Amino acid sequence: MTVKNRLARYTAEVESYLRGSLRSKGIPAGLLEAMEYSLLAGGKRLRPVLCLCFAKMLGASAGDVLPFACAFEYIHTYSLIHDDLPAMDDDDMRRGRPSNHKVFGEAMAILAGDALLTEAFGLMAKCGQAVPAERIVAAMATLARAAGAAGMVGGQALDMAYTAKAGVTLEELREMQAQKTGALITAACQCGAELAGASAEAVGCARRFGQAVGAAFQIVDDVLDVVGDAKTLGKPVGSDEQQGKTTYPSLIGLDRSMDLARRHVAQALECLSSNTGEEAEFLRDLAQYILDRVS
Amino acid sequence: MTVKNRLARYTAEVESYLRGSLRSKGIPAGLLEAMEYSLLAGGKRLRPVLCLCFAKMLGASAGDVLPFACAFEYIHTYSLIHDDLPAMDDDDMRRGRPSNHKVFGEAMAILAGDALLTEAFGLMAKCGQAVPAERIVAAMATLARAAGAAGMVGGQALDMAYTAKAGVTLEELREMQAQKTGALITAACQCGAELAGASAEAVGCARRFGQAVGAAFQIVDDVLDVVGDAKTLGKPVGSDEQQGKTTYPSLIGLDRSMDLARRHVAQALECLSSNTGEEAEFLRDLAQYILDRVS
Repeated sequence: MTVKNRLARYTAEVESYLRGSLRSKGIPAGLLEAMEYSLLAGGKRLRPVLCLCFAKMLGASAGDVLPFACAFEYIHTYSLIHDDLPAMDDDDMRRGRPSNHKVFGEAMAILAGDALLTEAFGLMAKCGQAVPAERIVAAMATLARAAGAAGMVGGQALDMAYTAKAGVTLEELREMQAQKTGALITAACQCGAELAGASAEAVGCARRFGQAVGAAFQIVDDVLDVVGDAKTLGKPVGSDEQQGKTTYPSLIGLDRSMDLARRHVAQALECLSSNTGEEAEFLRDLAQYILDRVS
Repeated sequence: MTVKNRLARYTAEVESYLRGSLRSKGIPAGLLEAMEYSLLAGGKRLRPVLCLCFAKMLGASAGDVLPFACAFEYIHTYSLIHDDLPAMDDDDMRRGRPSNHKVFGEAMAILAGDALLTEAFGLMAKCGQAVPAERIVAAMATLARAAGAAGMVGGQALDMAYTAKAGVTLEELREMQAQKTGALITAACQCGAELAGASAEAVGCARRFGQAVGAAFQIVDDVLDVVGDAKTLGKPVGSDEQQGKTTYPSLIGLDRSMDLARRHVAQALECLSSNTGEEAEFLRDLAQYILDRVS
């Protein structure tokens, strides 16, 4: 089976859980509609898939950790809704449809994002029935750190500051992107390992795989913004429109950017050198597939 | 010692923890400033105090549950920042100072709120060192439900819908306020009991105390908006300005509103009838103090 077909199979598993996850909870109708509009708008569900695969590869049952894995999609979705707001990136379109606030209004979009972020932690707690509570608390700490003020939200704050500033350095760009998009991808891998009760060494490998894949993913995204490509892997429509931003190609050129991405993918593959089985093979192919999007 | 003095002592304990809680975490300077501006703007810290008192009354060490208790203030603060945004209530002032977005801009205010909500769950996880993980997961599920789409955020969505609608009934008003402001107060009491490892019966008592106190608190707030009073207990400045909203006095008049508040306080006191000791006494006085604000 090709990596795309196997990814599609994992994506479908996540999709199926997401679809019913907000129903029968007593959520006011208007709020539920706004939350589901963005949560169920498609996408490859890369973060939940990474969390699931690491958990399975390291011995957990996929069904047991599925709610926790889906919490990553709740958090990713909330961040897209808030990023699109007029006060932020002011994007009218997202994944080929009007963005959340264009359909439901700004106030409801703010609330839908807030609600998805909060409900994400409810999903994590839900895993307490099948996964030892110590693992949940550890993984929750990891995810809160990655999504929080020194992680994803902090990266967005830095991005705002850098957009207004001339002369952003490569190191600043790397740091900002590691927080803004890398932290959640990294946490997805690390939480999968933590939920499986893996050794500290295996958790460290998962984290480094996530860091390397996250960095490669972002560089390739920057490159694709320049060279253009329809074969996007979970790349949100609309992100192309942010002009005048410092990117890898704008700082070091296309060739050196792709070299850097290749080195990150090689690092990622090294992290999995001692892992075997179906998930390890898929994760290796997935890391490689990031580069194939450009070629 | 009077109830006000004892409340001030608990408030100081919470304040002291909040003050250092965001430092040394690698948060970008601008974001940290915006978060602390609202988090450290004063207030009675009613929710953390309730959580602490229930935990202590039922056998936990206050120090062990302090980070979890403070998570309630993070969540309360984020909700105030987002509620004040131009797209929401559009309030320029909060607690006697310019609201967050007036000082830091809308984008940063949205991010500061998002970050406080996320970091709240980090604080909860932090208690895992001192409190059994099963209790953390249970209390976290309680808090996520109370703050989420069928709780506080849902209540805010209903409030928006009702503001645009004529003929809101007493039952609708009660439901909306139970979600918007009651749910978090209720969860503070319930989580305190859950963190202490209390029996299901004691957890139920804590929840009913919180529901009754939360309902009384909101009714008295509505009454104070009409009769005016400087002796506000944790009442955010600026909330008076929401005109044309359906309130208890507008639906059933001042006298019947106060009768209702008194009945809720009596219910609250009943929940604690078998509890003894310093915290039980304080909680009873605190419930009674809600009514004293008007007289």
